[in-house]
Amino acid sequence: MTCNHTIHSHAHHVGWDNSIPPALSVVPGEAVEIETIDSSGGQLHAKATLDDLKALDFGRVNPVTGPVHIEGAELGDTVAVTFLDFAPSGWGWTANIPGFGLLADAFPDPALHVWRYDTGLAKPAAFVPEGAVALKPFVGTVGLALAEPGSHSVVPPRRVGGNLDIRDNCKGTTLYLPVEVAGGLLSLGDTHAAQGDGEICGTAIESPMTVQVKLDLLKGENLPFPRLETSGPVTDHIDRKGYRVTTGVGPDLMQASRDAVSGMIDWLCANTQMAAVDAYMLCSVAGDLRISEIVDMPNWVVSFYFPKSVLG
Amino acid sequence: MTCNHTIHSHAHHVGWDNSIPPALSVVPGEAVEIETIDSSGGQLHAKATLDDLKALDFGRVNPVTGPVHIEGAELGDTVAVTFLDFAPSGWGWTANIPGFGLLADAFPDPALHVWRYDTGLAKPAAFVPEGAVALKPFVGTVGLALAEPGSHSVVPPRRVGGNLDIRDNCKGTTLYLPVEVAGGLLSLGDTHAAQGDGEICGTAIESPMTVQVKLDLLKGENLPFPRLETSGPVTDHIDRKGYRVTTGVGPDLMQASRDAVSGMIDWLCANTQMAAVDAYMLCSVAGDLRISEIVDMPNWVVSFYFPKSVLG
Repeated sequence: MTCNHTIHSHAHHVGWDNSIPPALSVVPGEAVEIETIDSSGGQLHAKATLDDLKALDFGRVNPVTGPVHIEGAELGDTVAVTFLDFAPSGWGWTANIPGFGLLADAFPDPALHVWRYDTGLAKPAAFVPEGAVALKPFVGTVGLALAEPGSHSVVPPRRVGGNLDIRDNCKGTTLYLPVEVAGGLLSLGDTHAAQGDGEICGTAIESPMTVQVKLDLLKGENLPFPRLETSGPVTDHIDRKGYRVTTGVGPDLMQASRDAVSGMIDWLCANTQMAAVDAYMLCSVAGDLRISEIVDMPNWVVSFYFPKSVLG
Repeated sequence: MTCNHTIHSHAHHVGWDNSIPPALSVVPGEAVEIETIDSSGGQLHAKATLDDLKALDFGRVNPVTGPVHIEGAELGDTVAVTFLDFAPSGWGWTANIPGFGLLADAFPDPALHVWRYDTGLAKPAAFVPEGAVALKPFVGTVGLALAEPGSHSVVPPRRVGGNLDIRDNCKGTTLYLPVEVAGGLLSLGDTHAAQGDGEICGTAIESPMTVQVKLDLLKGENLPFPRLETSGPVTDHIDRKGYRVTTGVGPDLMQASRDAVSGMIDWLCANTQMAAVDAYMLCSVAGDLRISEIVDMPNWVVSFYFPKSVLG
């Protein structure tokens, strides 16, 4: 469908605050084209180096474009966001940022990988020196304004959405978000060219894009948390050769997740020429954390699924 | 491949204990056909009723067939179990067992569904009155003996495997288990005709089967936890129509898991004629718990993926 409106990336903000004036007001059913900045807020770029990463100003990270006021949206309603299309930029970055990520204690040093990729998404993106990742662009951060006044960090996701990092918020998916303030006030950004479930190192293939979304309104659903509906399979771009899987077994889901991911990094280091931090970043963009069982008291099983296709 | 040995289901035990004499000794590379009993230990059957479930003797649950001594296996080695084939029985059961399961507090009353299914696995198994589940038999419990002496409950999985309930321990997969005692002492049972990631109500489609496995030995790998390798995609039998997805967002992965599953049960109750406990059991056999992000401090996102194909 043709978009009714465009919001350029200069209309961005770096905190959720329901007092930010709308950049646009739409009638339910309209489509909007939204330009995003990468999650560094433009501090990293296609020629960025480790020095740029080290100089990162965290006050500028994770900008979102918007907000969009949806006419008639009220407390208890649901805004339905259908992702119509993505125009990817062809470059992106993945980093290990000290202090951030599932294994922050094991990876204290900064690392940066800058990707160049086919904007037609026909080819997997190469990860030097080994591994190539099939791309599936999605919106990492998409949410509505909170009822609570003041400015709130964009880093954590919340009931109204935000930095959900659900890698299936991609073309064809409809995301349902609970409305807390009049007009909903939707913003989005933090677009990713690829990510596995978990985003375990803390970054995906961070890549600015233009996103087309259709915005609808459902009255009175009063959702407790975000929901979504995908239009088809979610892993068929990466799963054809199957998976290598590592596990963590124990009474704490967080520790089991850490053990599962550590096991895969160990496997990659033992079976490829990859450095550990590269394996960590590759796992973040391509591998999936799944809870295999959460009922066999007192030990749960978390599994990390790494697609064999990534290594060719 | 033709099996070198058969173990019948009378050779079963209900605890892990490294003093149980082997039912069989094999040379690495040999294949074994293993008969299993269902996880009730034969207390439930194709004509079982709620009264049978209420009378369940928990001292007899989760029997495993074995143990198999693998010649040459020593502490620090790895036993590789390749699942060659499954001969399913054509019946199974799913139950809500009071006090057991992710939402035990919300579902205090016992419930039982007995399934009949096509042993050729060509047709999804019907769940009355709505829903049908594509089948993919796998081994719920497969493990080696613990180094620690004495009898240990079969309910929790451990480093050496056991009640892992990883639904991809199916035909074509190779599972790698760390050896703690001489000979490894492998046992398996608790076969399932289908299960989603999480096994959220505590039971799958519990179904006795005969399983053919090939047993190999890798020296000196010293795995921290079980690993596996699948031979192909893991969800292509259920994902062709996509998924409905509910989420839980917050600082605790367990609570986020509970919120995500509760959301899906609410959706099923609002959009089908299903009773809540039936929705809970259907989610257990067909839906997947995934960790969408585990890095956006302090809130994580757990998502529950329910395949649209289940509802037709």
